[in-house]
Amino acid sequence: MPDVDLPQRLGGEALGTAMLLATVVGSGIMAENLAGGNVAIALLGNTIPTGAILIVLILVFGPVSGAHFNPAVTLAFALRRELPPWTASCYVLAQIAGAILGVVVAHLMFELDWLQASARSRTGASQWFAEGVATFGLVMAILGTLRWGTRVVAVSVGLYITAAYWFTASTSFANPAVTIGRAFTDTFSGIQPAHAPAFIAAQFAGAVTAVLVMRWLLGRAGARV
Amino acid sequence: MPDVDLPQRLGGEALGTAMLLATVVGSGIMAENLAGGNVAIALLGNTIPTGAILIVLILVFGPVSGAHFNPAVTLAFALRRELPPWTASCYVLAQIAGAILGVVVAHLMFELDWLQASARSRTGASQWFAEGVATFGLVMAILGTLRWGTRVVAVSVGLYITAAYWFTASTSFANPAVTIGRAFTDTFSGIQPAHAPAFIAAQFAGAVTAVLVMRWLLGRAGARV
Amino acid sequence: MPDVDLPQRLGGEALGTAMLLATVVGSGIMAENLAGGNVAIALLGNTIPTGAILIVLILVFGPVSGAHFNPAVTLAFALRRELPPWTASCYVLAQIAGAILGVVVAHLMFELDWLQASARSRTGASQWFAEGVATFGLVMAILGTLRWGTRVVAVSVGLYITAAYWFTASTSFANPAVTIGRAFTDTFSGIQPAHAPAFIAAQFAGAVTAVLVMRWLLGRAGARV
Amino acid sequence: MPDVDLPQRLGGEALGTAMLLATVVGSGIMAENLAGGNVAIALLGNTIPTGAILIVLILVFGPVSGAHFNPAVTLAFALRRELPPWTASCYVLAQIAGAILGVVVAHLMFELDWLQASARSRTGASQWFAEGVATFGLVMAILGTLRWGTRVVAVSVGLYITAAYWFTASTSFANPAVTIGRAFTDTFSGIQPAHAPAFIAAQFAGAVTAVLVMRWLLGRAGARV
Repeated sequence: MPDVDLPQRLGGEALGTAMLLATVVGSGIMAENLAGGNVAIALLGNTIPTGAILIVLILVFGPVSGAHFNPAVTLAFALRRELPPWTASCYVLAQIAGAILGVVVAHLMFELDWLQASARSRTGASQWFAEGVATFGLVMAILGTLRWGTRVVAVSVGLYITAAYWFTASTSFANPAVTIGRAFTDTFSGIQPAHAPAFIAAQFAGAVTAVLVMRWLLGRAGARV
Repeated sequence: MPDVDLPQRLGGEALGTAMLLATVVGSGIMAENLAGGNVAIALLGNTIPTGAILIVLILVFGPVSGAHFNPAVTLAFALRRELPPWTASCYVLAQIAGAILGVVVAHLMFELDWLQASARSRTGASQWFAEGVATFGLVMAILGTLRWGTRVVAVSVGLYITAAYWFTASTSFANPAVTIGRAFTDTFSGIQPAHAPAFIAAQFAGAVTAVLVMRWLLGRAGARV
Repeated sequence: MPDVDLPQRLGGEALGTAMLLATVVGSGIMAENLAGGNVAIALLGNTIPTGAILIVLILVFGPVSGAHFNPAVTLAFALRRELPPWTASCYVLAQIAGAILGVVVAHLMFELDWLQASARSRTGASQWFAEGVATFGLVMAILGTLRWGTRVVAVSVGLYITAAYWFTASTSFANPAVTIGRAFTDTFSGIQPAHAPAFIAAQFAGAVTAVLVMRWLLGRAGARV
Repeated sequence: MPDVDLPQRLGGEALGTAMLLATVVGSGIMAENLAGGNVAIALLGNTIPTGAILIVLILVFGPVSGAHFNPAVTLAFALRRELPPWTASCYVLAQIAGAILGVVVAHLMFELDWLQASARSRTGASQWFAEGVATFGLVMAILGTLRWGTRVVAVSVGLYITAAYWFTASTSFANPAVTIGRAFTDTFSGIQPAHAPAFIAAQFAGAVTAVLVMRWLLGRAGARV
């Protein structure tokens, strides 16, 4: 963990998660507005910015807070005993606060109501399975590249999410704070609040599975990890 | 070769190939569903995730198993005497098992039948020539960048496949395990099972050619390779 | 700062900014001409070249002039006392001259009038807020990655702008010299001259905010920065 | 220059240029076939593969031959006295032979006539100016990043061409061997043979200008370059 004071670390988590949500929600609005009804083009216009900003944000905030921006990732590091429970709890709160702030920023840039309740339905066993797979893959992409340091982790996460937007039926939220934030926007990237808890449960399940699988897989090779 | 026990190496090959197939097949389904009949847009939505996930998977599994995910690549390393025949055979079985698992995961995420027989025709001398060229180029992209280590190989392979989806008439399967997996899906990325063997033969021919050409080309410069 | 004489540094700022504007304006013209009215596709055709050329230009001119190409960035470094006021003023003039030159080059390549007055309206509080956010994020992306040197800054800036074209309602000018240049083109990327000053004010405000926030955030971790 | 024998160096230039042309021409055919008449989407499907394969090819062949694949680049290095005239002449012949071979390979993969005469008109002062700018920028992108070695040059060139396809009115051939090759295909990427010589002249003019400008700009900073 970086040698940075807690206020700055929490500031990094909050600001980074806010920028992430502003990008996810903002580019979703922009893409849907411009795509003339072709949802694949809209999703491209949502995917490319999200993958790109993740690389930037992890490069910037990795040395400050570790650049989790994601309670499922924070849980993974807590399970690995690299983050004490108290710090982890603070991280999660900062991430959720940042996520909501980011949604507000996106709405203000596009002249929409500050906070909205999404009406978009995202539910069912397939979607939950997809979120589990998506978060499993995300934690795998992080733990498997830690050995190479922040720069490689940043690229790995950005490219992983670029792929996961398309290969998972749920477009890969893979992040409880992002899920909460997206419950507050009734635009392209929204999710009905009632459908958020099952997504979040699936995400934590995927993260825990990844920690276990990667512990076995990286055993000797990943000693340093 | 990495200093990792065989079970973990086979686990890496199987899990990596499963993630690869889940991405190829899953993003193909998503892209076709959303693209409104424009096949070029669907192919973009299939290409970008595939190239991205390959970079991630090679970064993660390179230090574990070498990250072949591909019997043609395993053959290339066996020909170079960097992998004993027994290990190579185990690799190929793990890759095929992983490929089929990945297809099942993609189908479950999109609420489709677990396994399907593709009806999509992909045959003819031009397609076979294209597969030979595609696999030649893939092995060239790997052997030619080994000197720089896993990170550069990962980028090279991801970008190569991104290009090859478009410049080969067959959209570049370039991988016998992927070909077998894709025979089990009747979606965008499928291939009729009867047409798979010729693809696989062309792929092995391309790989062997690349090993010979690169041995001559890299002679002195590639001593270390 | 690089150990380069002032004329070369100003030459680097002017040439780099000219190439940047030629790309922004030229790809905007090309993309709009070809996109058949689908604005999302046109914006993709404008975004990808802009992000790509920024990486190239920062790699090339970083060791020459620091590769600002942007009065808001030059202001940020002046506030950090890394650039004396006189040099900073020269930088800004070179950037503006380069920007106008780049627009002329783009127009000549596409057989359009050398300089034009844009009729495109870009105004209102949301747009100004978006420009402030966009420039805040740009300066954050630079200051937060300085620790890793030019190559990482180049990637960070290129990917940041790729994202910001989509997540900000204003498509992220984030650069007073670019704003001035784009006032001289009545094409896809133009901005009505009367609307430029408010954009520029918002950009400087965003840059100053970023300097302050990053000073607090990077305190200890960024000592070296 | 790499310590490699001449036959291998010429083999590298020929094979690399062949793969480049197979990609440019092949992806152009694929993209136009699939894009349903939207030329911007077709150009995306031509741009992304071309930029990607350039990075791969420069990584692979940089340590073998320097990975020019381009008589204008070979001229630039000859002017800098880094390549003797005789070797440079051999390079150019290998590049032209490779280019034509690559076009044949693309045609065979797509079941088209081996060699064709393009009917596509690309002429006029604006197009020539665009080719001069495009090649100026390409040589700038190379000479300005040499200090960082092959890997950074590869990324710089790949991203530069990605941008230049869009910001130049001519879609940036920027390469006399590519121009000759593309005169032999009557598909998306073709150029009428009678229009090739003016393109080539403009390309050499752009390359020479870049050598002179970069010599001045990089003077002290680029001593090592």
